[in-house]
Amino acid sequence: MKRIYLDHNATTPVDPEVLDAMLPYFKELYGNPSSIHIFGQEAKRGMEHSREQIASLINADTSEIVFTSGGTESDNLAIKGTLSSGHARGKHIITVNTEHHAILNQANYLEQQGYKITFLPVDKHGIISLKQLKESITEETAIISVMLANNETGTLQPITEIGEIINNICAGSKSSRKIFFHTDAVQAAGKIPIDVKKLNVDLLSLSAHKIYGPKGIGILYVRKGTKIHPIIHGGHHERNRRAGTENIPGIIGMGKAAELAVKNLISENRQLRKLRNKLWNELSKHIPYIYLNGPELKPESASSVEEKRLPNTINISFEYIEGESILLNLDLIGIAVSTGSACTSGSLEPSHVLSAMEIGPVRSQGSLRFSLGKDNTEQEIDYVINELPGIISKLRIMSPLFEQYKQNKKE
Amino acid sequence: MKRIYLDHNATTPVDPEVLDAMLPYFKELYGNPSSIHIFGQEAKRGMEHSREQIASLINADTSEIVFTSGGTESDNLAIKGTLSSGHARGKHIITVNTEHHAILNQANYLEQQGYKITFLPVDKHGIISLKQLKESITEETAIISVMLANNETGTLQPITEIGEIINNICAGSKSSRKIFFHTDAVQAAGKIPIDVKKLNVDLLSLSAHKIYGPKGIGILYVRKGTKIHPIIHGGHHERNRRAGTENIPGIIGMGKAAELAVKNLISENRQLRKLRNKLWNELSKHIPYIYLNGPELKPESASSVEEKRLPNTINISFEYIEGESILLNLDLIGIAVSTGSACTSGSLEPSHVLSAMEIGPVRSQGSLRFSLGKDNTEQEIDYVINELPGIISKLRIMSPLFEQYKQNKKE
Repeated sequence: MKRIYLDHNATTPVDPEVLDAMLPYFKELYGNPSSIHIFGQEAKRGMEHSREQIASLINADTSEIVFTSGGTESDNLAIKGTLSSGHARGKHIITVNTEHHAILNQANYLEQQGYKITFLPVDKHGIISLKQLKESITEETAIISVMLANNETGTLQPITEIGEIINNICAGSKSSRKIFFHTDAVQAAGKIPIDVKKLNVDLLSLSAHKIYGPKGIGILYVRKGTKIHPIIHGGHHERNRRAGTENIPGIIGMGKAAELAVKNLISENRQLRKLRNKLWNELSKHIPYIYLNGPELKPESASSVEEKRLPNTINISFEYIEGESILLNLDLIGIAVSTGSACTSGSLEPSHVLSAMEIGPVRSQGSLRFSLGKDNTEQEIDYVINELPGIISKLRIMSPLFEQYKQNKKE
Repeated sequence: MKRIYLDHNATTPVDPEVLDAMLPYFKELYGNPSSIHIFGQEAKRGMEHSREQIASLINADTSEIVFTSGGTESDNLAIKGTLSSGHARGKHIITVNTEHHAILNQANYLEQQGYKITFLPVDKHGIISLKQLKESITEETAIISVMLANNETGTLQPITEIGEIINNICAGSKSSRKIFFHTDAVQAAGKIPIDVKKLNVDLLSLSAHKIYGPKGIGILYVRKGTKIHPIIHGGHHERNRRAGTENIPGIIGMGKAAELAVKNLISENRQLRKLRNKLWNELSKHIPYIYLNGPELKPESASSVEEKRLPNTINISFEYIEGESILLNLDLIGIAVSTGSACTSGSLEPSHVLSAMEIGPVRSQGSLRFSLGKDNTEQEIDYVINELPGIISKLRIMSPLFEQYKQNKKE
């Protein structure tokens, strides 16, 4: 059976070059990097090389890279670690309605601990208003967390501009206060250029398994001078910022994945945009009542800045049917897509991201996310284009919602 | 050059069978287990199989196994997670002076948060007094954490008996209060049998990389009915106990490592005890002023219960010289050992474990840990026995401490 994977925002296969780089570190170079002997020193050298590769990906210094177990832990360390260090003062946090649950559920937890949280709304494309952001900042604001690219829609937030606003407010303050700025760049990495200096962020989360690296490893970028306390206490690893024996094979894999991401970014993006645009153009030609969620698509030569979205992600609403039914029908013929994020699969709630974009429940329930990857071919996209219209017609025939819609139209 | 690894308490090589089990999960079965489609379901099946293998290792139910990024995270989730769930009431924690820093530094953190911590002392073998433990329990005691086997000396604590004391106190209490009992079993796993029911524990930490599994993966056993809150917030993974995309290849590797540990436990232990005893017997014959730290050694046919220590670990003090100098000299000829735990390597402080056993600074500074593994051969041990006496003599000749000792003796 064909197997076509169009769910790269959930996770990606490990690149063969990445796995090859990791392999020696399981059975041969297996030392604990904290050990003084040669086994330990070999492991440590590998780890520090990886730190350089990752620092290069985001234009950071190696001392600013803290290894964690993944994006979710990085998001937790960014916010809780900065707050508990006492470096971030004040009891107010600003974030956005469309963030990943690693931020939203953390914010809910912090609200119980006495913090005040502002959840900024977004427009119909999923983008926040800079004016609203600016107005929501108070003397009590300790940290602001806004994701770079949304995992469900691919929408990009204006991170550089937010950072400028924050810097201006801090520069103009008499109390030499500092508002920390964090961005979850897990979905953006490897898909658009990331430069922590241009983005004006203090903290940035990355995960290896979204960029053809292994699962179970991520980093938090921590700008020099930003104090964080560990959320996992123990040994003095990672300059006292994250305890626990380092996941060396994972670290090596993430380093290699970062190196490849830098190298292949531009060529992959043209290809992804081309396939994505073909998918949308053909589907929208052959299937009625479908809607693109998020910013409009630009041609393959466009940059992510121009189109305000990731090159690989497309979120489509098929009105009057359930996204999950489409997903299951596609799965039967070997095509893997998702409804919303993997982390909320199986939940019957409509997507919090689409709800925040004021996409009503009928359209939201009928939404599917196609997230393309570097190894997807035009043949694979053609197969989807051929198969999906039939599936949608079949499901609509069985759909009481669609029946009702036709009745209403007649009357 | 020869390479002899005698630092298995720091970390172990990944077993070839473990790596073989992991390999398909990098490039082929790479799905996110939260995904509904076939890629996700394949990953989920692998994960649940691993959960069964690990549950078997410790006689637990699969629902009681929570995957984490390693032993340190498990220790943190055990204590902070139980306290923050509100299920553990009271502001008093009991632990031991000789615990791993994942417990000690967490306890120090919790002390700053308003908890009262009792650090129990140990006897000269590193074992706590049950009477002292019992007397230290108050109405305010919420959680007790005592490690099963010490990482530096191999000393075993009487976990079953501690659990009985706690159960009796809770059963006799009118207020239906519950004192939670956690053990860090990271160093014990794969070396002695572990049965969570016989041990009478509510929470138990394991790490894969100490049992020939990969780094970056561990579990926390959470007895049914014990409520814990996540310390990493996000998606609903691991039944809302630990958020973040699961490290599937790591999980598969840990499952396989657990399966092999159960299968090979007894035969490996006889072999380890035999080599360990030979090492000590020969070294103590040929090197003066050396001391065994921890409980006495029993013959190879002994069980761990009889000898109150791990079969693979031996901690020796070479008086009047620095352990680190011996380590570096051994490293030059390809023998890897450690001074104390890997997590505190490079620190100039004497070992907190040996200090707690009232081993004075001169003996403590001259201590080395040899931790053997299943692939060590008798030839390797013979090589150490041949080389080490010469190194010790050479270092003692250069040692001002030894010079002073000889002067004092003359006078």
